[in-house]
Amino acid sequence: MTSGTSVDGAAYREAMARLAGAVHLVTTDGPGGRAGFTATAVCSVSDAPPTLLVCINRDSSAYPAFDRNGRLCVNLLAAGHEALAEAFGRRPLDERFSEGAWDEGRGGGPVLDGALAAFECRIVRRVTAGTHDVLFGEVEALSGGGGDALVYGFRRYHGVARDVAPPSPSLHGLRNVRTA
Amino acid sequence: MTSGTSVDGAAYREAMARLAGAVHLVTTDGPGGRAGFTATAVCSVSDAPPTLLVCINRDSSAYPAFDRNGRLCVNLLAAGHEALAEAFGRRPLDERFSEGAWDEGRGGGPVLDGALAAFECRIVRRVTAGTHDVLFGEVEALSGGGGDALVYGFRRYHGVARDVAPPSPSLHGLRNVRTA
Repeated sequence: MTSGTSVDGAAYREAMARLAGAVHLVTTDGPGGRAGFTATAVCSVSDAPPTLLVCINRDSSAYPAFDRNGRLCVNLLAAGHEALAEAFGRRPLDERFSEGAWDEGRGGGPVLDGALAAFECRIVRRVTAGTHDVLFGEVEALSGGGGDALVYGFRRYHGVARDVAPPSPSLHGLRNVRTA
Repeated sequence: MTSGTSVDGAAYREAMARLAGAVHLVTTDGPGGRAGFTATAVCSVSDAPPTLLVCINRDSSAYPAFDRNGRLCVNLLAAGHEALAEAFGRRPLDERFSEGAWDEGRGGGPVLDGALAAFECRIVRRVTAGTHDVLFGEVEALSGGGGDALVYGFRRYHGVARDVAPPSPSLHGLRNVRTA
């Protein structure tokens, strides 16, 4: 697509759109207020101690609350949570939590009722890289429920089935994937 | 599932198994030798400058080569690349590149012919977290091809369709997802 000392941002975003990723609502609560945003840029770092990371744009409206609270919760969305993902991606900060049912959790941040998994974390490290901060969270509480997974790739949502589809002469291999 | 100062590693791995992620072969070449491994723990950090990150276990056989070479390539796998993913996850280091067709690329690391996207990077930062290092790569060259995406979740592979499925009365919403 392009090359050079550092590639063009638009070409990079186009290539990254092919990277299908799980969709999360990353939340926080505390002295800095309640906030949350939709993110695919979350990944597991280590299980000893259990640690994950979240990338956040320092210009985002949610950033100051995360910065001050020092805690976060990664709520892994399930198939069917597309409206929640859109609300936390597009609506003003103070309107986002009107979508979904929320519990206080154990202090990491608001926990979404119905999340496939919720990882409540203490932020143990921050690394600045370009426009973003990478927040490292040590996981202090876990919860979660059932359901299929939700991923975002090629600029739209897809479901990923938890259970293996029943055998069928017409269902074999990856050709049978269907998307919303 | 559990809670405390830091949650149990096994419970954390169980929860993380629900996080469906794109599958990558992360490769390197240079004075430290050629090496590569399969990873889902890759994410985009910033597009200014284009930067991604990769988590690597410091005990892995591939680690010394990445450490010495200071460069890497993230090859985003497509649906149908399951054998490659398994080879780079399980085979001895010196047998992995016998699977797949590889180009030299522009110096970031071996580029997989048929990757959905290949991000050739200079490693600009390393952060140690528990058992792993997080390698930050600034993207210096991009290439890529077509095809559906490959994700790993619930401990197996799934395809994610690039093109929207044709409309059909029996196909609506996420209930129609099928997996291999």
